[in-house]
Amino acid sequence: MLTYFGTQHFAGCACCSIGPFQAMAASGSGLSAATNLEAGEGPRRGAPSGGGLIIDCHGHYTTEPQELLDWRKRQIAAIGDRSQMPSVDSLKINDDQLRQSVEGAQLKLQRERGTAATIFSPRASGMSHHIGDAAVSAAWSRVSNDLIYRLTKLYPKNFIGVCQLPQSPGVEPKTCIAELTRCVEELGFVGCNLNPDPSGGYWKDPPLTDRWWYPLYEKMVELDVPGMIHVSAAANPVFHTTGSHYINGDTTAFMQFLMSDLFKDFPTLRLIIPHGGGAIPYHWGRYRGIAQDQKRPPLSESVLKNVFFDTCVYHQPGIDLLTKVIPAENILFASEMVGAVKGVDPTTGFNFDDTRRYIDGSANLSAEQKRAIFAGNARRVYPRIPASIFN
Amino acid sequence: MLTYFGTQHFAGCACCSIGPFQAMAASGSGLSAATNLEAGEGPRRGAPSGGGLIIDCHGHYTTEPQELLDWRKRQIAAIGDRSQMPSVDSLKINDDQLRQSVEGAQLKLQRERGTAATIFSPRASGMSHHIGDAAVSAAWSRVSNDLIYRLTKLYPKNFIGVCQLPQSPGVEPKTCIAELTRCVEELGFVGCNLNPDPSGGYWKDPPLTDRWWYPLYEKMVELDVPGMIHVSAAANPVFHTTGSHYINGDTTAFMQFLMSDLFKDFPTLRLIIPHGGGAIPYHWGRYRGIAQDQKRPPLSESVLKNVFFDTCVYHQPGIDLLTKVIPAENILFASEMVGAVKGVDPTTGFNFDDTRRYIDGSANLSAEQKRAIFAGNARRVYPRIPASIFN
Repeated sequence: MLTYFGTQHFAGCACCSIGPFQAMAASGSGLSAATNLEAGEGPRRGAPSGGGLIIDCHGHYTTEPQELLDWRKRQIAAIGDRSQMPSVDSLKINDDQLRQSVEGAQLKLQRERGTAATIFSPRASGMSHHIGDAAVSAAWSRVSNDLIYRLTKLYPKNFIGVCQLPQSPGVEPKTCIAELTRCVEELGFVGCNLNPDPSGGYWKDPPLTDRWWYPLYEKMVELDVPGMIHVSAAANPVFHTTGSHYINGDTTAFMQFLMSDLFKDFPTLRLIIPHGGGAIPYHWGRYRGIAQDQKRPPLSESVLKNVFFDTCVYHQPGIDLLTKVIPAENILFASEMVGAVKGVDPTTGFNFDDTRRYIDGSANLSAEQKRAIFAGNARRVYPRIPASIFN
Repeated sequence: MLTYFGTQHFAGCACCSIGPFQAMAASGSGLSAATNLEAGEGPRRGAPSGGGLIIDCHGHYTTEPQELLDWRKRQIAAIGDRSQMPSVDSLKINDDQLRQSVEGAQLKLQRERGTAATIFSPRASGMSHHIGDAAVSAAWSRVSNDLIYRLTKLYPKNFIGVCQLPQSPGVEPKTCIAELTRCVEELGFVGCNLNPDPSGGYWKDPPLTDRWWYPLYEKMVELDVPGMIHVSAAANPVFHTTGSHYINGDTTAFMQFLMSDLFKDFPTLRLIIPHGGGAIPYHWGRYRGIAQDQKRPPLSESVLKNVFFDTCVYHQPGIDLLTKVIPAENILFASEMVGAVKGVDPTTGFNFDDTRRYIDGSANLSAEQKRAIFAGNARRVYPRIPASIFN
C-alpha cells in the first residue's frame, strides 16, 4: 500500500516525485512570492535575441492541488480492495484552485523569463505506469489529462495540452489509442508523452522500434501529433528518477532508433527526446561511428528527419555542445521548469533551468536559428498548436 | 545453449560482443596491414603536446585468439550438462598466438598514436556475468585474466593488467575478493573492472552504494587498487551494448555516488567512470543543481575526490565540454581502442577513437594539465603501475 510514496533512496526525489514535498511546490514555496499579476501581464525579460516569441515545449504540472494527490493516494490504496476505488468524477477541484496552483509558479516564471506558452502535460514522474494495472492507469491518466485541459481553457495563451498515456507494463500500447484520441480530438491536445519503460526501471517491454508499438504510432501519424519520449518515476532503487533514469531513457531510445528502420515505416512520425537528448550529443562522435561501423545510414538520414532534442540542459557549456553538434532544426526550446532542478546556480545567479539564457547566450546560433529553436521548430513538430498562440 | 552468441538486435553489436565478427578483429582486418615492426619500435606521432608519456587507462583484449572463444563456447554449452564443462587448464594458446593477436592491433595503434602503455583488461562485453552462475563466471574470469597476465609479461612496457571480476547476478560481491587478490598480488595487476549490473540490463542487484558491495571495496582499499565501473554485454534487448547500456551504466553509477555517503565510508576508494563519464559532464549543471536541491555537498567534495572520468569521447566538441566542466585532475586519458567504434571519422580523416588528438587539440588545457591527463593522474589513481613504465 502506498508504494508510490516509497522512501527508497534512489527511486525518487523530493522535487519531482509526488510526495511529502509536493505541498511546498504547490504553494509556490521556493519561488519568490506570487503577486496578483494577471497571467501574461507581468514584466517580460524582453523579446528573445532572435526576435519572435518563445514556446517552451516541455513543462509538467508539478504543482497539482492537494486534492489530486489525495485522489491518487486513495486510488493506490484501493488496488488491494477494488471496492474502495475512487471514481474519476469524485475528484473535486475548482477553477480558483487550479489558478492558484500555477499563478505563482509556471505563469510567474513565464512572465519573468519571457516565454509565451508552455506545452504542458501531467507530472512525468507522477505517471508511474508501474503502479497498478491498465485500469488504474486509465483512470489516473484521465483525471490528470482533464486537469491539463482545464488549465488550457483557463489560460489558452499560456498552456498547450499534451497528454499522459494510460500505459501499463506488459500491456499493448494500442490500448492507449482511445485516450490519445480523446485528448487530441476532444480536448485539443497537440501531442503525448510516451514512456519507453512502463516498468519504472526494469525495462521489461519491447524496444520502441518493435511492432508492439506500431498501432499507437499509426494513430499518432493519423492525428498528426508527436510524442515526447519520457520515462516516469524509477521504481528500481538503482536509478535516481531525474538524475539517471530520465537521462538513460533518452539515450536508450535514441540508440533504438539508430539501429532500426522505424522511420522507414513511419516517415512522418515525430518524436522528441527530452533533456537535451540524454547523453547523445555529448557522444555524437560515438553514435556517428557506431552507425558507420554497423552499416547504418548517416544519422542525418536515419534519425534526424524524425527525432528532435529539447534544450533541458542546465548549464551554458552543455547548450553550447548541443547547438554545435545537433542541427538547429532538430532543437526545440524547453526548460521543464518547476521540475527536476529548482535552485539557483551560484555560478550565474540565475535558475539552473532558466534555459532561455543559454540559448540567448549561445555564440553558435544565428538569429534565424534562435527563432527556429524558440518557436518555429515547435510549430513544425506540433502542427496542432493553435494559430492563436502565434498571434 | 550459446545464448552468448544471440542475434538479438540490440543486445550486442558485431564490434564489441564476441561473435562471428571476432575473427575479423583478431586478424587485424579493418586496421591497415600489420608489419613486422617490433612493439615499441614503430614510428611515433611524437611526444604529446604537453610533454611526457601517455598511458591509455582503458583498453580491452578485443582481439582474443579463436581458441579462447571456442573454450567459452564449450563452457556455455556445458551449462546444461556440467559433465562437459571444460577445465581452465584445457585452454591451450601459445605465446606466438598471443603476440599475433595484438601486434597488428593494439601495439600497432600504440606506435601510430604515440601512446606508451595501455591499462589492459579482458573484453568488457565478454565478461557477460549474466551467463551461467558464479562458478561459470569464476572459471571464465580466471582464463581471461591469465591471458592478460601473459600479455603483460610478453610486453611489460606496453600492457598493464586490470582484472575481470567473477561477478554473478544476485551473488555477493565479496565472492570476487579471491580473484581480485590473486590478480593483484600474484599477477601484478593494478585494478579491476566492476560491473554495476551483472544481470546485463535488468538491473537486479543493489546500487553500488549499498553495503552489499562493501567487502569488495574494503579489499580494493587494502590492496590500493581502483575500480573502473563498467557494465558488460546487454542481455536485455532494449539496450544496445556499447551505444546505450555502457553509457547508462556510467550515468547511473555517478548518480548513486552523488546521493550517497559512500566516500565518507571509503575516503581512499578510487573509481573511474569510463566513456567520459556517460552523460554526466553534458548535464553537469543538472547534477550540480540536483545536489544543491537535495542538500548534498558540492560535487567537488562529495564525489570528485574519489571519482575520475576517462576520455573515451569520440569527437572534439565532447572532449572540449569534458575538459571545460570537469577538473583536469579528475580526467584520465583513455581511448578504448579496438573497441566500440573502429572506423575513421569522415569529418577528420582520423579514427573516432584516436582520442589523443582531441586532448592535443584542446584549447581548455595547459601543458601541465595535459601531462596530468596523459599520465600523471593515472599514476596517482593506479599507484601499482610499475615504476618501469615511467622510465
